[in-house]
Amino acid sequence: MRDFLIDTDTASDDAVAIVMALAAPDVRVLGLTTVAGNVALGQATRNALYTAEICGSDAPVFMGAGAPLIRTLRDAHWFHGADGLGDQGYPPPQRGPEQEHAVDAILRLSRENPGLTLVTLGPLTNIALALARDPKLAARIGRCVVMGGAPCCEGNVTPAAEYNIWVDPEAARAVFRSRLPIEMVGWHVSRGSSVLSDAEVAAIEALGTEKARFAVEANSRAREAYRVQTGEVGLSLADPTAMAVALDRSVGLTWSRHRVAIETQSELTRGMTVVDRLGVNSDPINADVWGAAAGESDGADVLWTFDAQKFKAMLRAALAA
Amino acid sequence: MRDFLIDTDTASDDAVAIVMALAAPDVRVLGLTTVAGNVALGQATRNALYTAEICGSDAPVFMGAGAPLIRTLRDAHWFHGADGLGDQGYPPPQRGPEQEHAVDAILRLSRENPGLTLVTLGPLTNIALALARDPKLAARIGRCVVMGGAPCCEGNVTPAAEYNIWVDPEAARAVFRSRLPIEMVGWHVSRGSSVLSDAEVAAIEALGTEKARFAVEANSRAREAYRVQTGEVGLSLADPTAMAVALDRSVGLTWSRHRVAIETQSELTRGMTVVDRLGVNSDPINADVWGAAAGESDGADVLWTFDAQKFKAMLRAALAA
Amino acid sequence: MRDFLIDTDTASDDAVAIVMALAAPDVRVLGLTTVAGNVALGQATRNALYTAEICGSDAPVFMGAGAPLIRTLRDAHWFHGADGLGDQGYPPPQRGPEQEHAVDAILRLSRENPGLTLVTLGPLTNIALALARDPKLAARIGRCVVMGGAPCCEGNVTPAAEYNIWVDPEAARAVFRSRLPIEMVGWHVSRGSSVLSDAEVAAIEALGTEKARFAVEANSRAREAYRVQTGEVGLSLADPTAMAVALDRSVGLTWSRHRVAIETQSELTRGMTVVDRLGVNSDPINADVWGAAAGESDGADVLWTFDAQKFKAMLRAALAA
Amino acid sequence: MRDFLIDTDTASDDAVAIVMALAAPDVRVLGLTTVAGNVALGQATRNALYTAEICGSDAPVFMGAGAPLIRTLRDAHWFHGADGLGDQGYPPPQRGPEQEHAVDAILRLSRENPGLTLVTLGPLTNIALALARDPKLAARIGRCVVMGGAPCCEGNVTPAAEYNIWVDPEAARAVFRSRLPIEMVGWHVSRGSSVLSDAEVAAIEALGTEKARFAVEANSRAREAYRVQTGEVGLSLADPTAMAVALDRSVGLTWSRHRVAIETQSELTRGMTVVDRLGVNSDPINADVWGAAAGESDGADVLWTFDAQKFKAMLRAALAA
Ligand SMILES: [Ca+2]
Ligand SMILES: [Ca+2]
Ligand SMILES: [Ca+2]
Ligand SMILES: [Ca+2]
Repeated sequence: MRDFLIDTDTASDDAVAIVMALAAPDVRVLGLTTVAGNVALGQATRNALYTAEICGSDAPVFMGAGAPLIRTLRDAHWFHGADGLGDQGYPPPQRGPEQEHAVDAILRLSRENPGLTLVTLGPLTNIALALARDPKLAARIGRCVVMGGAPCCEGNVTPAAEYNIWVDPEAARAVFRSRLPIEMVGWHVSRGSSVLSDAEVAAIEALGTEKARFAVEANSRAREAYRVQTGEVGLSLADPTAMAVALDRSVGLTWSRHRVAIETQSELTRGMTVVDRLGVNSDPINADVWGAAAGESDGADVLWTFDAQKFKAMLRAALAA
Repeated sequence: MRDFLIDTDTASDDAVAIVMALAAPDVRVLGLTTVAGNVALGQATRNALYTAEICGSDAPVFMGAGAPLIRTLRDAHWFHGADGLGDQGYPPPQRGPEQEHAVDAILRLSRENPGLTLVTLGPLTNIALALARDPKLAARIGRCVVMGGAPCCEGNVTPAAEYNIWVDPEAARAVFRSRLPIEMVGWHVSRGSSVLSDAEVAAIEALGTEKARFAVEANSRAREAYRVQTGEVGLSLADPTAMAVALDRSVGLTWSRHRVAIETQSELTRGMTVVDRLGVNSDPINADVWGAAAGESDGADVLWTFDAQKFKAMLRAALAA
Repeated sequence: MRDFLIDTDTASDDAVAIVMALAAPDVRVLGLTTVAGNVALGQATRNALYTAEICGSDAPVFMGAGAPLIRTLRDAHWFHGADGLGDQGYPPPQRGPEQEHAVDAILRLSRENPGLTLVTLGPLTNIALALARDPKLAARIGRCVVMGGAPCCEGNVTPAAEYNIWVDPEAARAVFRSRLPIEMVGWHVSRGSSVLSDAEVAAIEALGTEKARFAVEANSRAREAYRVQTGEVGLSLADPTAMAVALDRSVGLTWSRHRVAIETQSELTRGMTVVDRLGVNSDPINADVWGAAAGESDGADVLWTFDAQKFKAMLRAALAA
Repeated sequence: MRDFLIDTDTASDDAVAIVMALAAPDVRVLGLTTVAGNVALGQATRNALYTAEICGSDAPVFMGAGAPLIRTLRDAHWFHGADGLGDQGYPPPQRGPEQEHAVDAILRLSRENPGLTLVTLGPLTNIALALARDPKLAARIGRCVVMGGAPCCEGNVTPAAEYNIWVDPEAARAVFRSRLPIEMVGWHVSRGSSVLSDAEVAAIEALGTEKARFAVEANSRAREAYRVQTGEVGLSLADPTAMAVALDRSVGLTWSRHRVAIETQSELTRGMTVVDRLGVNSDPINADVWGAAAGESDGADVLWTFDAQKFKAMLRAALAA
């Protein structure tokens, strides 16, 4: 069994990613830690609990940070609906969250289960706080799969930035400066051929399971918002692409390792994931800048291309169960 | 009895401030929480323990953050000496720190002792982390006296910034955006007439106590560094000025309340405490900028002028005991 | 005779400053160059021409830059009135501006009259453009008196910045990085005791001259706007304080010479005049930052205190003539 | 005949681009305007004159800006050699530059030849200064082909920026905020299949003309520097790709029109060409940021893909003549 810990600002695509993890037979989900992001912390927590309930899982849910480190929260209601789950009127979850704070849970679970896989589906606030409490956390994490970033510089909030990084860029900077073994799954991975066509969505609905119905309904708002935003028709599921990578790294086809700095100083490029593809950080012109921004990190694995057909098969299998 | 909690990157002037608090008959020091700043975290912790030992105090010492939130630590060895205490060869302390992390201690002690006075003598990393864990912390603090900032725009690290704010500006921004009841004692307060002349230093040495000797010796390096930096001859003690205010607010003569934003986006003015003396944050030109930078805070009490004679009397009394 | 060249975004206080220069018996005003700032370029030019007309002067007026180097113009109608002269319904001027562009005029006049005194009363766009065309301009200017900046960090647009610098910070940065012999007269100089009380304004009106009437009327809006902005009652005349310094440097009481960097990278502190009072630019921590921001300049003379009574006497004398 | 005006910091690839323009039978080169960039202004001017001489052209050469608007010049000797032409020991040119300043020449030539094609091969300082002098310049330019930018976010100075934009980002911002009809040919266009293989270089040398020999020799340093920088073997010629587009727009295969903002506020992403591919500037979250950064411009044509074979044929034809 592999151990997963999932940090999530649970909205509609997070929910599908969580469903995938809970359906994986060889994965034990140690917990879900929630963070403010697409929706407020309380709503994210309710959504995480409800998603677990749909899956018949009693994975513990731990509440974390209610706001970015130093910025005002900008949520994404306009994309995911007021409740983050497409405003389908889902009932309140039957369980409540644990007493333990998400940051404590991350630290404890990483001690109890060294080598675990951390999957982050939201702003990186909780992870930054956990690293600030205990920098050795990085060494206890086997893999850290991050849904976030726009290494191709086509962002979903600004031209330069993806939401999860943009909304708490200081937290992202702390995480990318750490020694966490980051595998970065940017927003571009969920676009183009990764988008589920209307026919593919219909095929999922035809599975007839509660999980399939939930996955499609909860993302109805997001599906329309994505069409308006990008002009691409269909269902784009960012968090599930990262979860697919966490479940099976080979779904990521092209990877390369680079230092990644996070822009925190300009509003224009706030939250940009600046990927040093040509290794200029060793150039004296750039040494100061990178020393300040990218710290002591030895880099992150950046995913460029993706096996969309395999991803869709993984998704269908999880929703069919 | 008043309850004090002191957060400190214990170097030479912190040590004197701690001596003052421990000597105050009506003050109970609930604990010292340490943070990386002038010296590394381990050294700050040893210095805090040694200072308590000099005072015969068993106040618990809790270790906190070992680095700023997202920046590389820049210490101040050049000012305070390699050990932060003027390299006098002090022996290791006989006690060690507590197991509990400083952030947990701050949260717990504030619950157990609501209304306590928090005095910060170093970078604000621990306080920012505590607020991120529990924003309600702000409501449990009676007074928060901060040694930090340069409201007159004559800083000791750059022309715009004072060290404690400059070294972790993101932490400072989080603290100044919070609802903590901040009383800001900037670097200017410890200059000019607050500087102890050579004669005043000699008078302290003549007290003949261990604490007096310690206070002067531990600051020998800082005394010389201050002269080089400012051209002012004598002993300038920033942290003790803030502690004097914490012990007796009336030592602060002129106060005004303003929104204070912390500069985090420019290297030139990094860590500047931008004080809105004219209330321009209500001007539409500035609303966006202040909304982003100063958040929901209703401001801080900023100290402008100071009763240096009273301060020096308080200092002498503490060192004489 | 001394040669003056006056660069101005002619609004109500510029007008009074121009009147002072044109009334000075030992001063030859070589020209007025106009720039967009408090009002649009065309209005500034009409105002400059009208002011010269009031004074019976045929000093040539040259039109310059219609916008800041890279920013959108933010004018100050709210302070000076829609026409910049308090909306008194002044008639159009009888003369028009010269064909020659202000930047060419500045370069030519400085060649024809080396050692001239350049007085800047608006954004520094024209001067930056002239320096970009011919960096040797700096060596042909005898004195460069700049109304601008907030070295005490109490600005009139934001807490950190004065309007003339804030509105085109890149131009200001170019000017302060140049070798121009800058004498910086910040906004603070026109405050406090420099403000004309109601009685002093009445005394000016009682002079009964057209110039006195014009000076008071044209500033009626500004007088009220200043009261709202600062709470200080009376007539505050920033540009005339700089002109007084240009006419007689001894009206400036306390000066010191420092490197001055202009903040262009942060919105919060945009346009701040960062004055290196403690000489930290020689500190290695700051060398890079100052190298980038303050260039090769050897600094500016910064005025701290001012002889308000002498200023008011100079003003009265000019308006009485 | 089409009228071309070429602005250039003449180093080794500029020289080849100039050769191409001068060899085009239907193009009249109205002039070459020089700017500091890869080499200092004097060297760039000598190189432009020498290149014209090689081509038997008497096109006038006008000297422009000797430094970026507000930054210290950072040249590229390390890439192009100390003289910018591979240190081949070329003799001084026989002609000298014109008396007229480049900025005046740009303004005059655009008035005399409305609709001309402006090709920029260096930092945009001269163009920004010309626009500041006369914003109507934009309407008199038929096409403005810019070699500059890194819309794919893989820069040659930093991960985010290409040299021409990075070295004077404020000038670039002014140009991209203007209404110039920009066709942006980024650095990526000259990479990959556009790089001349060793065999293709040998074939050019085999042409046996002085121009062919000059083109290869002058770029010998750059060829090696490019290999070190990118790992790609061969001769990469950025400026000639832009000149090819200017000569025949159809060599650019895929274009799209977007607002482009230039990053001037962060060191990390300084000089980035932020391309709004998804049209987020109409989103209220981004309106303020884009209003400030991209001004009133209606955008630029951004080139994404390029007909490398056609380019190489154009290049060979020009060097063979
Ligand atoms: Ca998410
Ligand atoms: Ca301290
Ligand atoms: Ca003015
Ligand atoms: Ca070039």
